[in-house]
Amino acid sequence: MSGEKIIKLYHFPRAPHARKVYIFLHEKGIDIPREEIHLGTKENLQESFLKKNNRGVLPVLELDNGLFLDESPAICCYLEALYPERPLFGKTPVEKAIIDSWERHMEFDGYLAAQDAFRNTAERFANYAVAGVAEEFKAIPALAVRGLRRLDIFFSRLNQRLEESEYVGGDNFSMADITGVIAVDMAKRSKKTLPDNLASAQRWYTAMYERDSISSTYIEG
Amino acid sequence: MSGEKIIKLYHFPRAPHARKVYIFLHEKGIDIPREEIHLGTKENLQESFLKKNNRGVLPVLELDNGLFLDESPAICCYLEALYPERPLFGKTPVEKAIIDSWERHMEFDGYLAAQDAFRNTAERFANYAVAGVAEEFKAIPALAVRGLRRLDIFFSRLNQRLEESEYVGGDNFSMADITGVIAVDMAKRSKKTLPDNLASAQRWYTAMYERDSISSTYIEG
Repeated sequence: MSGEKIIKLYHFPRAPHARKVYIFLHEKGIDIPREEIHLGTKENLQESFLKKNNRGVLPVLELDNGLFLDESPAICCYLEALYPERPLFGKTPVEKAIIDSWERHMEFDGYLAAQDAFRNTAERFANYAVAGVAEEFKAIPALAVRGLRRLDIFFSRLNQRLEESEYVGGDNFSMADITGVIAVDMAKRSKKTLPDNLASAQRWYTAMYERDSISSTYIEG
Repeated sequence: MSGEKIIKLYHFPRAPHARKVYIFLHEKGIDIPREEIHLGTKENLQESFLKKNNRGVLPVLELDNGLFLDESPAICCYLEALYPERPLFGKTPVEKAIIDSWERHMEFDGYLAAQDAFRNTAERFANYAVAGVAEEFKAIPALAVRGLRRLDIFFSRLNQRLEESEYVGGDNFSMADITGVIAVDMAKRSKKTLPDNLASAQRWYTAMYERDSISSTYIEG
């Protein structure tokens, strides 16, 4: 350990990746100072925040060595090293690898598909269809259609995984479940929900919302 | 450690994510048994391989406990735990977090943009524009255009990073450099190269190709 200390978490409650960190902290039973950066007023794209993170993305974790750390899995993994109790990234190398792999499937197959669907149709993103850049990008309606089709494949794979495993990452709740919930909830913004006939995925999603960490951090729309 | 052993790596030399694992192994000075799965003949989509990995993606690492591990960063992180000498994911929690964050920037801002550009124009992917699924997806030409514009932003940010840091992940060569090279080389498939005026990015890219691990694993086109 280099001995650096956490100053605060820059966040916004409706930002899906910030929610991952809230869920993570809640599951760990820890809390850290926070400062809200309002995405609605584009506070994240103002000079004062861009000096901290030149992408203007949330969440960002500020450390007392002058570092502003971004990317929610990197932030959570750092927090796991500081607070190893109740591990959410696995214990053994093979557990860690399985969780890492499934966490990525949730993000690439699920979250990114849902993001494509949402940002390429939502009116407020018509000229800002690409997340994480200040530059204008026009929405591509065909990409939204592709995103919805990819979500069908994602839901089906998620269900298949949960037929054989209680949680996405294995026998225990993990970071892979957190990113999974974020993906499914992002899809809801495009009115795309887990099909009723996917019983194992439904069983899992219900169990997820029985956790305070998940239900208390959900904001509709 | 649970004591499981590596059986082999399923790979294909032209597959960018498989190349990440080759580079990683080369840098570590280790080798493991390999079996080539030919993407050109769609061997990855045949029943015998889909039983191992239902996405039909490469690389996949087979373990003697029956597990087939996918996702190149998960595979490399697992190998790092087994072979901790010459760490490529950092040593301290904060080093690990910085490398993790930058590795993700290389993939999301760089590799995915390059993949969008390539797969939505290349003739052989006209009906298979989405990686990692067997289903047909038609190419979206506007997405290729978006990918090329996103690459301009990526190159500029990469250069900015390398003005202040010798390597992408900090003072040492790391996994973030490996994914960075993969991203820049994926862009070359769309005839998009690092602009000459980005001196720091050029300095880094030249240094990368002075490494055997990078130069010996490059396949053009």
